[in-house]
Amino acid sequence: MGTLLRNIRPIVGSVGTISPRFADGIIIDVVDGTTAETREDELIEGHDRLAFSGFTNAHTHLAMVLFRGLADDVALRAWLEDHVWPIERTLRQEDVYWCTLLALAEAIRGGTTCLADMYFHTDAVGRAIEESGLRALISYGIVADSLDAVGRAELTTARRIVERWNGAGDGRIRAAVSPHAVYTCGEDVWREAAALACDLDVPIHTHLAETRGEVDEWRGRTGESPVAYLDRIGALEAPTVAAHCVHVDRADVAILAQRGVNVVHCPKSNAKLGSGIAPIVAMREAGVTVALGTDGAASNNRLDMIEELRAAWMMQRAHAEDPRALSGREAVSMATDAGRSALGMPEGDLTIGAPADIVLVETTGSHMRPQHDPMSALAYAANTGDVTDVVVAGRTLMKDRELLTIDEERVQSEVERLLRRHRA
Amino acid sequence: MGTLLRNIRPIVGSVGTISPRFADGIIIDVVDGTTAETREDELIEGHDRLAFSGFTNAHTHLAMVLFRGLADDVALRAWLEDHVWPIERTLRQEDVYWCTLLALAEAIRGGTTCLADMYFHTDAVGRAIEESGLRALISYGIVADSLDAVGRAELTTARRIVERWNGAGDGRIRAAVSPHAVYTCGEDVWREAAALACDLDVPIHTHLAETRGEVDEWRGRTGESPVAYLDRIGALEAPTVAAHCVHVDRADVAILAQRGVNVVHCPKSNAKLGSGIAPIVAMREAGVTVALGTDGAASNNRLDMIEELRAAWMMQRAHAEDPRALSGREAVSMATDAGRSALGMPEGDLTIGAPADIVLVETTGSHMRPQHDPMSALAYAANTGDVTDVVVAGRTLMKDRELLTIDEERVQSEVERLLRRHRA
Repeated sequence: MGTLLRNIRPIVGSVGTISPRFADGIIIDVVDGTTAETREDELIEGHDRLAFSGFTNAHTHLAMVLFRGLADDVALRAWLEDHVWPIERTLRQEDVYWCTLLALAEAIRGGTTCLADMYFHTDAVGRAIEESGLRALISYGIVADSLDAVGRAELTTARRIVERWNGAGDGRIRAAVSPHAVYTCGEDVWREAAALACDLDVPIHTHLAETRGEVDEWRGRTGESPVAYLDRIGALEAPTVAAHCVHVDRADVAILAQRGVNVVHCPKSNAKLGSGIAPIVAMREAGVTVALGTDGAASNNRLDMIEELRAAWMMQRAHAEDPRALSGREAVSMATDAGRSALGMPEGDLTIGAPADIVLVETTGSHMRPQHDPMSALAYAANTGDVTDVVVAGRTLMKDRELLTIDEERVQSEVERLLRRHRA
Repeated sequence: MGTLLRNIRPIVGSVGTISPRFADGIIIDVVDGTTAETREDELIEGHDRLAFSGFTNAHTHLAMVLFRGLADDVALRAWLEDHVWPIERTLRQEDVYWCTLLALAEAIRGGTTCLADMYFHTDAVGRAIEESGLRALISYGIVADSLDAVGRAELTTARRIVERWNGAGDGRIRAAVSPHAVYTCGEDVWREAAALACDLDVPIHTHLAETRGEVDEWRGRTGESPVAYLDRIGALEAPTVAAHCVHVDRADVAILAQRGVNVVHCPKSNAKLGSGIAPIVAMREAGVTVALGTDGAASNNRLDMIEELRAAWMMQRAHAEDPRALSGREAVSMATDAGRSALGMPEGDLTIGAPADIVLVETTGSHMRPQHDPMSALAYAANTGDVTDVVVAGRTLMKDRELLTIDEERVQSEVERLLRRHRA
């Protein structure tokens, strides 16, 4: 009993066609070749499509799809302070719920099976993720200068979110503690947040060294880099997921490697906001796990991991003037395995015992022909539009491009309604 | 008599919805608003889709889709000499015909209405373009050290191609003279090629200053830059389309501006091959027309102008650490108007008298929602998969994602057959 996924072509591992069987969310058998018979309850015909365990979008703010296309060409601080924050202040739980679902529809259509979200109204985020069927690390973004009443309340919310959501959705959902950044949380807040993460045995998820201005200002004021500062105050003791790390020097990279910090590279967001190009080759060489994320849609404007991994190899190669700086295979690995590892999620490969997280990619488009190598096809040629099926923990979230867990039309109209309310 | 295209939303110009009428390949009327009635022969329902005159891919080698995914991670010279050229030598006219059609299928699906191709077996290229219905500037790539028998034969072929194809396809096809590059054609060949272009009143289309190695080698040997050299020998007298121009200094940029050279920026190819990031902001500021091209699919690996324009703004902003370095609007303009201007093609806007070149883009996908601005949606959010309809010179090449001028299945199978022959 279970499901047979017949005739798929893994992008890594096996050469040729396989037919995995899964039950209770786990792959229980893998048959080689194209002629597997079925005695199972359910059959998914893979049609010789490319298969992998799906992308991990390791840093995003899902509900920010609301701001897609709003003020596209301004710098980070002005964009946050003049455009995003004034609207964010008015958002309700229900708004965040619908916006998160809109983002998840895009994520599933793009072959994402796992992601890390940091936002507020996190109960709404958790509810949307739970319904969607995706895997996610979710967190409440703490912003507080000190441990005054506001700071205490922020930490209480962060604790409550972890207690409520860590392990939810049959274990698909995990929670993190998220002090927003070095420049938005005071030292006491950082210390408490790190202690909370250790106490609850969950990771820290934060923003780190995103812009040159932020790092220069911090160094000018304190004499040390944001990375060195977090290390000195013990904030890197918990497993840490650090988005961006664009402006890190050699000493910072050594700290990141030594502390086992998981870096999330967000090349498109860093490009759009003019933040720069992160030295991910140096980080990888130092042994740092570097995952990939879209950041929020407002600074991207997509949640498209194919565009994101392509942006990663493009910018590293162009910047280094070296076609070997980052291969397509390495970029795909950052967008898949490295992401799962960074978020502490179960490894996804298409072997027995692995979770039944499976994404199918059609290869019939002229842009995918001819095909010399499946990995190359995914890294260099595929579009999100080629993704046809998405399975997470054995549950089918998209079948032949139809979403099964999200009512996309309803979600789109709820977000339009929210916008009309806001404009009125 | 003619065709009414009802209810479209132009990305530039008009605000709101319009309904253009066209006949004999020209837009003859534009009705404002959404309720235009029709007495026309044909009706295309625009369904409130975004509309523009289509992308211009101003530098490509269409038939090189054959090499898509072959040796993805090596440097330009080795890639050409070890992987591409050995196979190219065996290609026949018929092979180039089918590979070009495969490329054109991808181009039309991506909303390209106009392109510039440089390759060999150019009669096959011309035939494929003519059948496809696209606009194109085509040319035979001349490679010759000197005006020996080989060099003479190359120039004779170049002349014959212009005489055969310039003005073909009811004027949709134009021809150029293409000395391949400074490092692959001798000075006499360049002088003759430029004279030929002036004589035939067609542009030069070439590669220029693509890699640092090429420019350094040239400077080391001759003491001048490739741009200064071409200027000195009078090769920039004809209207010139120069692909790449990655490694140009301030003096080069001044020459390009003074001579009215049209530069074609190929950011993805320059990234994939590790060639670098072209100083297009400086070129634009100096008044140089900078268009956009994919280069051949082998070094891209797509002919996707949405990916290409996105790569353009990404790399300029990231490299300059300035979100204002290149706006989405400017990148779209490079991919459309600037391309048409560079190739000497008629301007494409959706006003009376303009050619009926029209591309429709669907906005129903969750990744396009919400939509604050149509231009932003195209520059930052759309996928090629959102393109539904393509009209060139009044002829519908794609209707509701179905290609009307190319038998895509046949083309794919012919290319597979060619590959099997080559592998055998």
